[in-house]
Amino acid sequence: MAHLDIIGTGNMAQAISGIAAKGGSTVELFGRADAGKPVTGDIVVLAVPHPAVADILAERADQLAGKVVVDITNPLDFETFDSLVVPSDSSAAAGIAAALPRSRVLKAFNTNFAATLAAGSVGELPATVLVAGDDADAKSLLAGVVTAGGLRAADAGSLERARELEAIGFLQLTLAANEKISWTGGFAVVD
Amino acid sequence: MAHLDIIGTGNMAQAISGIAAKGGSTVELFGRADAGKPVTGDIVVLAVPHPAVADILAERADQLAGKVVVDITNPLDFETFDSLVVPSDSSAAAGIAAALPRSRVLKAFNTNFAATLAAGSVGELPATVLVAGDDADAKSLLAGVVTAGGLRAADAGSLERARELEAIGFLQLTLAANEKISWTGGFAVVD
Repeated sequence: MAHLDIIGTGNMAQAISGIAAKGGSTVELFGRADAGKPVTGDIVVLAVPHPAVADILAERADQLAGKVVVDITNPLDFETFDSLVVPSDSSAAAGIAAALPRSRVLKAFNTNFAATLAAGSVGELPATVLVAGDDADAKSLLAGVVTAGGLRAADAGSLERARELEAIGFLQLTLAANEKISWTGGFAVVD
Repeated sequence: MAHLDIIGTGNMAQAISGIAAKGGSTVELFGRADAGKPVTGDIVVLAVPHPAVADILAERADQLAGKVVVDITNPLDFETFDSLVVPSDSSAAAGIAAALPRSRVLKAFNTNFAATLAAGSVGELPATVLVAGDDADAKSLLAGVVTAGGLRAADAGSLERARELEAIGFLQLTLAANEKISWTGGFAVVD
């Protein structure tokens, strides 16, 4: 399959690592102590909170050249829980793509809660990873990793659709925070 | 229950009418030939395509005063299928609310395909109507109509969240148009 470097060690990083390993990919997780260690994989997942992304890009922009970079962030204002912190006509993923012109940036996993990724399901339904990006080969590579790991993947369109994916992630987080859904539920994709 | 006036006679109007009638509400549908007939219900559903809303507001703003007005539109650019036609920091529902300061405006049903409303389910899961609005009583009234009709309703927050509901509706339409999901599928809410 592929080799994934996952920057981050939290529950999303661990869940994505589990999916990739189950599907036969090799995985390396990078914690804060690994800041000096270069990434070498085909796919690099930025599995950190949105405010931590800028430093990673500053440190690793050269290493990320030529790689598929996966943005999983939900750029909420976590103080108010009432808005996103990115411009309304853009997205966190678009910002990352602008900062990494030599990388192929995908938005993925931000509409999946960690527990649903770890379980591979949302309630009784299989979990679906929505993937947006401008490079078809990059999307296919990530979709292959996801489906080999037992989940579904759906092509959500160009990287412009990251804006809608971030809106879904935002709304899903507010529904869970307000106890309208649980952290093992959320939006399932029925095909 | 309530009395609903539904402006529109298409598949969404019919599906919403069916839900309301099943739950014991009375319903009247208004077609184009009924433009001169006043609405009298507690709830008025604008079940028309987004470009048709402006004329209805111009004709009926006075009649809509004091009523719960439900916006179900997905304000897509249907030529490009690549953007919404409302400002990125706003929503169709916010525009309607601004035009109807004496009404209580809700966003609802725009994340449900007509077939899922008519069936009451998305695949194996019950269909959930996401409702956003600033008036708690108005949301409760509509949620009561929906749940009496056998579906689920979930409070998606203030009318500001209409922006995210419209993003979900937009993405769901693009997924169906690109055959990633069927018109009987889409986003199901797992609680």
